[in-house]
Amino acid sequence: MTAPKEIVDAVLEGRNQAVARMLTFVERRSDGVDDALAVLHRAAGSAHVLGLTGPPGSGKSTLVSALARHYRSQGRTVGVLAVDPSSVFSGGAILGDRIRMSDHGDDAGVFIRSVATRGALGGLSRACLDAITVLDAAGTDVVILETVGVGQAEVDVISAAQTVAVVSVPGMGDDVQAIKAGLLEVADVHVVNKADRDGASRTVAELREMLRLSHRTAGQWNVPIHQTVAANGDGVADLAAVFAAHLDWMTEHGERERRARRNAATRIRWVAEELVLDELRPGVAAFDHALDEVTAHRTDPLSAARQLVGR
Amino acid sequence: MTAPKEIVDAVLEGRNQAVARMLTFVERRSDGVDDALAVLHRAAGSAHVLGLTGPPGSGKSTLVSALARHYRSQGRTVGVLAVDPSSVFSGGAILGDRIRMSDHGDDAGVFIRSVATRGALGGLSRACLDAITVLDAAGTDVVILETVGVGQAEVDVISAAQTVAVVSVPGMGDDVQAIKAGLLEVADVHVVNKADRDGASRTVAELREMLRLSHRTAGQWNVPIHQTVAANGDGVADLAAVFAAHLDWMTEHGERERRARRNAATRIRWVAEELVLDELRPGVAAFDHALDEVTAHRTDPLSAARQLVGR
Repeated sequence: MTAPKEIVDAVLEGRNQAVARMLTFVERRSDGVDDALAVLHRAAGSAHVLGLTGPPGSGKSTLVSALARHYRSQGRTVGVLAVDPSSVFSGGAILGDRIRMSDHGDDAGVFIRSVATRGALGGLSRACLDAITVLDAAGTDVVILETVGVGQAEVDVISAAQTVAVVSVPGMGDDVQAIKAGLLEVADVHVVNKADRDGASRTVAELREMLRLSHRTAGQWNVPIHQTVAANGDGVADLAAVFAAHLDWMTEHGERERRARRNAATRIRWVAEELVLDELRPGVAAFDHALDEVTAHRTDPLSAARQLVGR
Repeated sequence: MTAPKEIVDAVLEGRNQAVARMLTFVERRSDGVDDALAVLHRAAGSAHVLGLTGPPGSGKSTLVSALARHYRSQGRTVGVLAVDPSSVFSGGAILGDRIRMSDHGDDAGVFIRSVATRGALGGLSRACLDAITVLDAAGTDVVILETVGVGQAEVDVISAAQTVAVVSVPGMGDDVQAIKAGLLEVADVHVVNKADRDGASRTVAELREMLRLSHRTAGQWNVPIHQTVAANGDGVADLAAVFAAHLDWMTEHGERERRARRNAATRIRWVAEELVLDELRPGVAAFDHALDEVTAHRTDPLSAARQLVGR
């Protein structure tokens, strides 16, 4: 059985099979994966990480597929991480590779991976961000995170992207209202997909009005509203150009660095929480003793916690 | 200005004004409140903590009021903590006392307090559990937690209760389906309120079927379904008797101790998380240095976190 550290070099060379196996190690938190990620993180940082989110039915998957096809036609490699809240497994189970976008099935330049959201806590989010690191370190040019953006966990994950696109679609009842406020805050680009449908111009107008009300200050990125028909590829190349323009803008204005720091802060905090809580569970002697003392009212939760974390 | 520690003795004597002020200190996390809580926790443990939850419109507030009136008629003191998700304040703001149940306004034996839910994290939950400690240490016989049970935070809070009642009401569209699965798991008692309405027997039947499907094992508490008309007091005294029977059952079967331990574990973990994350924020030198290193890809989030938390 190959251990994570033994395939690190193959991942760094961008070998597909190694990347796929490393992603499995990351999802399963296999022994040795931490050391592997430590090496991979040092090699990461050159991918453009896109986040695509929006309500169910907005055609995100088709758009992701169309974008992947576009990038491939430019000779760029693509990794897709689909965070799928409908795939909740109990315990540590994980969806394996899901070759949903069958037109990419044989293309070595495209990775597709579904990640099941287990619970709302940092575990899934951390695994997802680690998966970005793996793809990035493997030299993937564009990493696309796809989430439905329903919960805070998804918003946390999408915040790790450098460029976040919120996808709407005409005629979804209350249209723009279907987009959660939390997603609007993180949108760098608005995409109105299925723009050949009736109501597209109304959806665009609603988004424009919403952006007008959001009181952006001078010097900020001017959030564009872009229309696509992902099913036939209309507008997809232009959308990719918008994403590239956003990355350039961020680099010029120091925003890329600011986001990288924010992302680093989130990741460090998540990991620190995990490290601390790992030792605070029934069965660990010091914790059991603390439980005895607090339950018997001989000490209080804060004093016990202070002693346990050495603060 | 009185500091928390100066009124601890008055709280322990059960003096109303001191309790009210201590609750304010707890909500604001005033200086000295930790030391005060350390003393108060040691004096707590004798109150019966009830949790009442259910969908909006189920008449929880009326039921809480009727229960409070019943307990007062028995000479028992009552504390009510209403967790109100509609009262989200930015930052540290907190709703003051809300004397909603005006029929108890002049009764020194009843405390009523609204707690605003700020965010989904441990902050609110912790403040709420600390408030239980204050009321308990003050010698309050029955503490009633009222939540609408919409999010995980509310479920976490309600889990701190010794006896959890989930309140339904006939004719709420999909009736029982309106109760979130997470709440069903924590229910010790089901209450069908407004039981004089059409459809009450159907709601009871649905709950019974649901309980039948829940595969309770032998030796477990047999969750009763109790009907009330809180507005006129029907069934309220019997409901209080059911709560008392549940407490007795828990004491006899070791469940009271088990829940106290589980509650202690939750509280210790929440506090430990807070203690650790308090030191992991921009502006703290060690954290800023870690951000520099991770952002520059000279180290990885896990290695940085390990160093920061000393593990």
